[in-house]
Amino acid sequence: MNSLYNTIDLIRNQKPLIHHITNLVTINDCANITLAIGALPIMAMDPSEVGEVTPNAKALVINMGTLSQLGLDAMLISGKIANELSIPVVLDPTGIGISSFRKSGVNRILENIKVDIVKGNVSEIKTLLGVATTFKGVDSLDIDEAQTLVKIAQEVSSKLNTVVVCTGEIDIITSNKDTICVKGGTPMLKNITGTGCMLGSLIGSYVAVSDDKVEAVEMAVMSMNIAGERAYSRMIKENRGSGSYKVFLLDEIYNLTSIGE
Amino acid sequence: MNSLYNTIDLIRNQKPLIHHITNLVTINDCANITLAIGALPIMAMDPSEVGEVTPNAKALVINMGTLSQLGLDAMLISGKIANELSIPVVLDPTGIGISSFRKSGVNRILENIKVDIVKGNVSEIKTLLGVATTFKGVDSLDIDEAQTLVKIAQEVSSKLNTVVVCTGEIDIITSNKDTICVKGGTPMLKNITGTGCMLGSLIGSYVAVSDDKVEAVEMAVMSMNIAGERAYSRMIKENRGSGSYKVFLLDEIYNLTSIGE
Amino acid sequence: MNSLYNTIDLIRNQKPLIHHITNLVTINDCANITLAIGALPIMAMDPSEVGEVTPNAKALVINMGTLSQLGLDAMLISGKIANELSIPVVLDPTGIGISSFRKSGVNRILENIKVDIVKGNVSEIKTLLGVATTFKGVDSLDIDEAQTLVKIAQEVSSKLNTVVVCTGEIDIITSNKDTICVKGGTPMLKNITGTGCMLGSLIGSYVAVSDDKVEAVEMAVMSMNIAGERAYSRMIKENRGSGSYKVFLLDEIYNLTSIGE
Repeated sequence: MNSLYNTIDLIRNQKPLIHHITNLVTINDCANITLAIGALPIMAMDPSEVGEVTPNAKALVINMGTLSQLGLDAMLISGKIANELSIPVVLDPTGIGISSFRKSGVNRILENIKVDIVKGNVSEIKTLLGVATTFKGVDSLDIDEAQTLVKIAQEVSSKLNTVVVCTGEIDIITSNKDTICVKGGTPMLKNITGTGCMLGSLIGSYVAVSDDKVEAVEMAVMSMNIAGERAYSRMIKENRGSGSYKVFLLDEIYNLTSIGE
Repeated sequence: MNSLYNTIDLIRNQKPLIHHITNLVTINDCANITLAIGALPIMAMDPSEVGEVTPNAKALVINMGTLSQLGLDAMLISGKIANELSIPVVLDPTGIGISSFRKSGVNRILENIKVDIVKGNVSEIKTLLGVATTFKGVDSLDIDEAQTLVKIAQEVSSKLNTVVVCTGEIDIITSNKDTICVKGGTPMLKNITGTGCMLGSLIGSYVAVSDDKVEAVEMAVMSMNIAGERAYSRMIKENRGSGSYKVFLLDEIYNLTSIGE
Repeated sequence: MNSLYNTIDLIRNQKPLIHHITNLVTINDCANITLAIGALPIMAMDPSEVGEVTPNAKALVINMGTLSQLGLDAMLISGKIANELSIPVVLDPTGIGISSFRKSGVNRILENIKVDIVKGNVSEIKTLLGVATTFKGVDSLDIDEAQTLVKIAQEVSSKLNTVVVCTGEIDIITSNKDTICVKGGTPMLKNITGTGCMLGSLIGSYVAVSDDKVEAVEMAVMSMNIAGERAYSRMIKENRGSGSYKVFLLDEIYNLTSIGE
């Protein structure tokens, strides 16, 4: 935990600018969780201006939810600039399986941009590898399935030459060389929209101040898991529901270094 | 109430996918209330992909707030597919009276799509019938006005061959054949944005698991009224305001089967 | 305070319609704070319809965050109509310094529209005058800097012939003739996204019912500062974080006349 808290201090001291080109459902939550962890969000998304914004950023977070042609153009512009300036790129292929438009959008990004970190749920990571998956994704899994998932994540990592995070009951983080499995969090995280997108923002914030990408991702995943668990305890204790849960989740990210333990 | 709670159980077991093509002001709230009642939201809105998304859905919710040309194109594509596959279509003609663009947009949808349920406030429903209305809508009404409203709702239902929900101090639900008037809720629901849009999401969620459209709408209206009242009690008891009210409203939808009564 | 509370009563009685053409990150928060202070928000943003919406409004709030070409077109259409009908126009040049697209967008508005009130943070107001500024803006300042800022705000006011609000540790309001410096608020307001945008909504709401623009802006600034301080006290007392802070901020605007003092 020492390393986690030290890194949060780094984020809060450096206040890295995190450029998001993200979806319109959770854009406010992504901006707020970026501020809560201590970084500065900028959500510029128009192709006319993103090229001037990305050079000032310390990480670029691309999220394919509510993808549009203009958004894809913006992602390609910013992604290329990020590559030229060695700014880390985080890709969240949200809902890649739902349409050929998103699938070809993700492919165009992967062909043109060197992505550093790919974050997806089980069904999104499987789709990246062309493995058959159900539309709704898989929520729980036994040990055999977990081992299969680790292999799939490693294959995606190897194929795309990126760090891969596959979220679920167990979160799998792999650089192909190193693989970490993180158990934690709570199913309650799936009862509100945007926790996946917000994890992308946390990954961007950690990787902006860290050289070790696998460690940065692990810290982001742990942060979400710890905050998710604490928020759930508070929700139960105060007899609340999913509306309060989102509020408490942001509270716990904001208070990550000051409460608990 | 038994039937209401049984239906919520159905939603939570079947987790129907509810495809929203909705406005950008309340898109996050609509996704979260859909999750809170137990269904799965998908908010894809680009014409390039909605045609592949709708076939996987159990209901399509179309909301005209912040309408754009692209959004209208997407609604027409998804609406036609929904009709072909007998997926119920819910139309919320948000703010239809504010511009000829929205009015003609609603008309294009009604001419090309078989809409199953239309939900609007008094001024929106009146506008659908071409009855003069004030820009700000009508908040309170006497018995004569209530009877006039019932007639207007029935005429709209007959003209459009849909179930009509006209929300206000009294909520009127009519299939032309059957008419139900529901009293309840609280004026506090108008002090936050999006409660009308969120009711559309609830209607989509109930109709996705129910064959009786009038009953599904009644359950959605009752859910919003009950949750709205409980949230208001909590707001007063804890000395809060409209920010907390929205949070508590989502809490109460999430906890609808477990608290109260 | 008497005048402030009387003006809030005016807003709540008249319920003026506030037309926003605003950014997609904080659009929901802007609508909700407008309702919380007692006015009615309308967020229509498509060039096809804004020309019919603005004439019904009592103020027009233009915010350049997430600017798009379509959004700029809409702002120009609505701004011209507002000018013709003497509807006050509030401009928030959000992030004007981040791209030439935004800078030229703001310039096109200032060349074509008579803006009544410009609201920005230190770096945005400096950019309007062509004064060099750092990308992240300036958070704290000594007396010399404060005096320099007052001069800059006055020069912008004189150059653009508008009331200028420059927000920061000290909020400077100037019509060139009259200058008011307001101390208050809390740095916590910067830990959530959208407090600047929401201040724009409050300014729109106050100016909609008031003839004295400087006084209207002062009331909006005081409202945000008072609510911001009260929300922070509650956050600390209840051991919460930034998620709750946003909720409490809206609560305190809603309860502005009924609690405290």
